[in-house]
Amino acid sequence: MSFPLTVLITGCAGFIGSHLCEMFVSEGHFVIGMDNFLTGTQDNIAHLLRERRFDFIYYNVVNYIYVQSRIDLVIHLACPASPADYSKHPIHTMKVDSLGTFNTLGLARQKGARYLFASSSEIYGQAQVHPQPETYFGYVNPTGPRSVYSEAKRFSEALCMAYHRQHSMDIRIARIFNTYGPKMRLNDGRVVPSLISSALSGEPLKIHGDGTQTRSFCYIDDLILGLYLLATKEGLSGKSLNLGSPQEISILELAKEIIRISSSTSEIVHLPPRPEDPQRRCPDITLARTLLGWNPTIDISTGLSKTIEFFKHKTAP
Amino acid sequence: MSFPLTVLITGCAGFIGSHLCEMFVSEGHFVIGMDNFLTGTQDNIAHLLRERRFDFIYYNVVNYIYVQSRIDLVIHLACPASPADYSKHPIHTMKVDSLGTFNTLGLARQKGARYLFASSSEIYGQAQVHPQPETYFGYVNPTGPRSVYSEAKRFSEALCMAYHRQHSMDIRIARIFNTYGPKMRLNDGRVVPSLISSALSGEPLKIHGDGTQTRSFCYIDDLILGLYLLATKEGLSGKSLNLGSPQEISILELAKEIIRISSSTSEIVHLPPRPEDPQRRCPDITLARTLLGWNPTIDISTGLSKTIEFFKHKTAP
Repeated sequence: MSFPLTVLITGCAGFIGSHLCEMFVSEGHFVIGMDNFLTGTQDNIAHLLRERRFDFIYYNVVNYIYVQSRIDLVIHLACPASPADYSKHPIHTMKVDSLGTFNTLGLARQKGARYLFASSSEIYGQAQVHPQPETYFGYVNPTGPRSVYSEAKRFSEALCMAYHRQHSMDIRIARIFNTYGPKMRLNDGRVVPSLISSALSGEPLKIHGDGTQTRSFCYIDDLILGLYLLATKEGLSGKSLNLGSPQEISILELAKEIIRISSSTSEIVHLPPRPEDPQRRCPDITLARTLLGWNPTIDISTGLSKTIEFFKHKTAP
Repeated sequence: MSFPLTVLITGCAGFIGSHLCEMFVSEGHFVIGMDNFLTGTQDNIAHLLRERRFDFIYYNVVNYIYVQSRIDLVIHLACPASPADYSKHPIHTMKVDSLGTFNTLGLARQKGARYLFASSSEIYGQAQVHPQPETYFGYVNPTGPRSVYSEAKRFSEALCMAYHRQHSMDIRIARIFNTYGPKMRLNDGRVVPSLISSALSGEPLKIHGDGTQTRSFCYIDDLILGLYLLATKEGLSGKSLNLGSPQEISILELAKEIIRISSSTSEIVHLPPRPEDPQRRCPDITLARTLLGWNPTIDISTGLSKTIEFFKHKTAP
């Protein structure tokens, strides 16, 4: 592909989508962002709308997509991504990652464009192997409440590979692990914004279960670089790559760190564990290191400080 | 539900579909069969077309479905089901079990009908637990060549449960294990018709790998009774049930039994193993026994004899 590219990004007004649009625009590419603001926000793209190299299309990817211009790369990021969001929109979530995947793959095929699908660590489910390499098939309950997200992501991965095999399309799959940073929604139900929100307002920090369950949190700037490399490097067609931080931290430690950094007086309280909440989730990123030369560099304290600064500003009267 | 029922059956011209239509018609119900003959055949339903209680609609379930009449029960069986078929139609297979599932669920919801989804033992993938109970989540490669079928079935199960939870619909899921009997296609690539075909024509019986891999084969009449009970009994909403024979037989033993029953002079030859072919596949049918009072009764020798008789007749000049 010859630079600059024209890139279509679905879910451009979401947390990851808006950062990824910024990255492509700042690297000199042209971006067509698509979103229907189901879980994304206009705030996230307000500054991008002023850019000459950014166009916005208000659209629901569940419907047939027609775009007149040339497109070199399609990135399908659109999907309600927090458990609170996909529990609220279970059927729409399954449509975005089936009909939406068909539509965006069809568009990429028609345009002769490369395709990057944003999959998720949720495809590993209640993993029985730690850390999870890409060769691990996962352990997902197909009929549980979380399956609307995890099975839709798995379906989309299978569909991408079917288009890759059947139509020789250049397809890449990013399995995105927990990511945090500025532009998350304070109320999206995910653990980092929830805990920061509580810490900043002096409310108790609520932890599901005993807090010994671990997660590995990747700062948004690290993730965006990984996605950019996976989308733009040559010779990666047909590859699924884990993108995330391999640094595990328990939810209890995370809560304590947030309290420390924000100088909060909040206490920690425990709620019942969530159904099917995995006990551990940690990527093996050997493949991304090898193929992309990529490695997360921002430690949790630095990342949390930046995120807390953002939310302080956001919640200021 | 008050009998007789009006039942819509997709995939009515397939192996299982045509037998199931017969069962419903013979029990006094009205059946609307739907098929596009992608893998089903007109031969399979020719006799049904003469029945007053059977209507046929030539239709591809990937498109929006409108039916004017009352419908009490929707059974979504349509899908290329043999590895040879879904390898030939990978993207269509994924459409039938995503778009087709959305469309048939939407129809059932609109009509206030009960819904039965025909899932598959393939959702267990390369199972690491034997026999497989319904509580086992499976071990499926989301990006392998077989994923077009297994992930589409898993997606549809998740979608059924989403409609069940979101719209309080009466949903049942049948996880169908290997089934054999009259009306299979001789050339559909599945092991029983392939081996019988070779035995009857005096060709060598080709076995993938060393033949120690086991399967459990359920005779079609047993399976149909299980499906009928799962569809018509009260109090089963939200249940996924294994339907299949718990009697394991190695592929080598199967080949020998077919040679014996058909008095064939054929020899057995070995081919390279198939990619991702599971070594064992055997249902735990405790749940079906308990909830349906169902148990397969036709032993493999009896079932094979009936099937061989059918194919002898079929291949006669």
